[in-house]
Amino acid sequence: MKRPSILVLGAGYGGLTTVVNLQKIMGTDEVDITLINKNEYHYESTWLHEAAAGTMTPEQVRYDIKEVIDPVKVRFVQATVEAIDVAGKKVLTDNGEFTYDYIVIALGFEGETFGIEGLDKYALSIANVKAARYIREHIEFQFATWSAEEVKDDSRLNIVVGGAGFTGIEFLGELANRVPELCKEFDVPREKVRVICVEAAPMVLPGFDPELVNYAVGHLESKGIEFSIGTPVVEATPEGVNIKKSDDEFEFIKAGTVVWAAGVRGNRLIETTPIENMRARVKVEKDLRAPAFPDVFIIGDCALMINEETNRPYPPTAQIAMQQAEAAAANIKALIQGQTTQEFIPDLKGTVCSLGDDDAIGVVFGKKVTGKRASFMKKMIDNRALYMVGGPKLVIKKGKFNVL
Amino acid sequence: MKRPSILVLGAGYGGLTTVVNLQKIMGTDEVDITLINKNEYHYESTWLHEAAAGTMTPEQVRYDIKEVIDPVKVRFVQATVEAIDVAGKKVLTDNGEFTYDYIVIALGFEGETFGIEGLDKYALSIANVKAARYIREHIEFQFATWSAEEVKDDSRLNIVVGGAGFTGIEFLGELANRVPELCKEFDVPREKVRVICVEAAPMVLPGFDPELVNYAVGHLESKGIEFSIGTPVVEATPEGVNIKKSDDEFEFIKAGTVVWAAGVRGNRLIETTPIENMRARVKVEKDLRAPAFPDVFIIGDCALMINEETNRPYPPTAQIAMQQAEAAAANIKALIQGQTTQEFIPDLKGTVCSLGDDDAIGVVFGKKVTGKRASFMKKMIDNRALYMVGGPKLVIKKGKFNVL
Repeated sequence: MKRPSILVLGAGYGGLTTVVNLQKIMGTDEVDITLINKNEYHYESTWLHEAAAGTMTPEQVRYDIKEVIDPVKVRFVQATVEAIDVAGKKVLTDNGEFTYDYIVIALGFEGETFGIEGLDKYALSIANVKAARYIREHIEFQFATWSAEEVKDDSRLNIVVGGAGFTGIEFLGELANRVPELCKEFDVPREKVRVICVEAAPMVLPGFDPELVNYAVGHLESKGIEFSIGTPVVEATPEGVNIKKSDDEFEFIKAGTVVWAAGVRGNRLIETTPIENMRARVKVEKDLRAPAFPDVFIIGDCALMINEETNRPYPPTAQIAMQQAEAAAANIKALIQGQTTQEFIPDLKGTVCSLGDDDAIGVVFGKKVTGKRASFMKKMIDNRALYMVGGPKLVIKKGKFNVL
Repeated sequence: MKRPSILVLGAGYGGLTTVVNLQKIMGTDEVDITLINKNEYHYESTWLHEAAAGTMTPEQVRYDIKEVIDPVKVRFVQATVEAIDVAGKKVLTDNGEFTYDYIVIALGFEGETFGIEGLDKYALSIANVKAARYIREHIEFQFATWSAEEVKDDSRLNIVVGGAGFTGIEFLGELANRVPELCKEFDVPREKVRVICVEAAPMVLPGFDPELVNYAVGHLESKGIEFSIGTPVVEATPEGVNIKKSDDEFEFIKAGTVVWAAGVRGNRLIETTPIENMRARVKVEKDLRAPAFPDVFIIGDCALMINEETNRPYPPTAQIAMQQAEAAAANIKALIQGQTTQEFIPDLKGTVCSLGDDDAIGVVFGKKVTGKRASFMKKMIDNRALYMVGGPKLVIKKGKFNVL
């Protein structure tokens, strides 16, 4: 009898945790497990804003997938997925075709520009390791150019961050610490550099406690970050962004760097399948399967789940993706063994938003935290994610121990 | 009675060594010494190719002028010299006007592009710390861009180095070591990167022993550096350089980075004075004074001295500049004390051309050296220059101790 085959697409938090759980709970003789990922490495996507700001190196935020998978139990294929045929139960990649009995789609997020003109072309996005590294190099290049050029164009030093949500604020927190370093390294007076956060919504960090939001804004403003709230970006150009300040008032902000951190959506490949979806996110069944496709699990940023308490979707976080991965692995095992699947219920331990290496805000186990204590917790959360995938060895190798 | 005033322009090897010697041999009550320099720091211009390649940081190749001057004896003014009035015995800067009884012009070199079209605009030059840092960031930005872009333009990764003289070869030596690091850091396959040295003359390192030249070329070629010798650059464009391969054969080399390392001249300010000069270099008297201006000393890259043994000019090296500085300081003291000046005779200890951090070629005390031994000597030469200016303290702080 042929062993059932499980195909996992993506080695982000969701995909890699699925594989790690599968190799733990399933025997070698029970299943064939294949993991497909574009790169030979996993990256901590919740740390990318640090690589983009330059406060961490790209090396620090990624590690080899081979370090955490068991080669006896899991076949790893480095390939880019080109199409998912959920009717034919196969996946086409640039490195061959793969069939499956069960598939876990964990392809992560893509940036969403909401059709705003020029953003795709002229704004940078913290989408992956390479894009984050590009942002860091782009900013350094602007500083080096300003320093070396005879006629100085100060607008090179302006950095516009689009979005005051989680990613935007965390990135601003890193920039607040990084800019003084950049100034020192490139002989640029600090007062020449402007970092401006532009947000369409009337508030910063929607969903967060207002007291914590005030703390965050105060902290960032004290480090020289400017906020322009309730002022949507209406266009990006090679020179900067145009923002709408009121019904008939616009302002053009000239900037050498524009980073768009204001929206995510699911992976576009989902939209090419017959699976019902909204911006490539699929409202999954309670056991994490796609509606009408009982052999397809969808987890992480491509899965949409409604929090019945608030009647709003759960945010696409690493925490939930990893819990879903564990549940999906268990449910696949159940199906293979002829048992019934279990409902997935997120266990929300809290959320901490960093404000640079040395400060943060958050709610942990229902309690508000700020400052060094919150920053410490943030690092423990990051280390815990490493532990869940790679055990203590990975924590020692990649963990954040620059604890205050 | 008013004390005589000495004005020293430039804090490179020549200017700074002059000041350090003056403050040693002259009493506070004897003279007023003023040092004028564009930056508040001195940089090791013979190390700039390392900062440009990225094998050293800009911080490592510079130090604060205040670390080596005695504030009781020397007044340091950060200013850019705008004009030298040798008839009126005064100097105009962007930070005021300064008169003098004796002046030491030690303003260093500028790049020479020999009128080749486009070089000024599109080629980078290892001219100073900021320019070197710009080159490093430019190259990193090309690698980051290639890595992040969807449609990859491999020519971004090509680096053309114009000139196979001392600077060109030392820069290539650093690049040979740096490129593999860059490839690793930016996920670029090594075989995608081309480093091409283009030289108009029919030989590499003219004036060097042919055996040593062969060693150098062999070493660099083994690390993947390509040479195109006897093929002048005839034009630089935003896309690369056009080289002349024979009378009617041209080749365009597409390259993301073009560094011009093929010629130096004296500082252009010299040309605005009535002092006789050739490409801003002054054929100085035997005691280092400018012809017809007995209160003007010119040392370093702006001074031209003929080696009577070879009937060719001495090369503009740090070694000679520092020896001239010592002699100029002594001659100024002699003039002030009514004595006669002494003839300056260079004491050539040898020349070592590095081929990266781990190899070099050279002639030291008349003996040919290569490999690790030569590399060690190069580092000792670099450390000796630090010692001459700042004593053991500076050697400990800035010296090269990564000795093999």
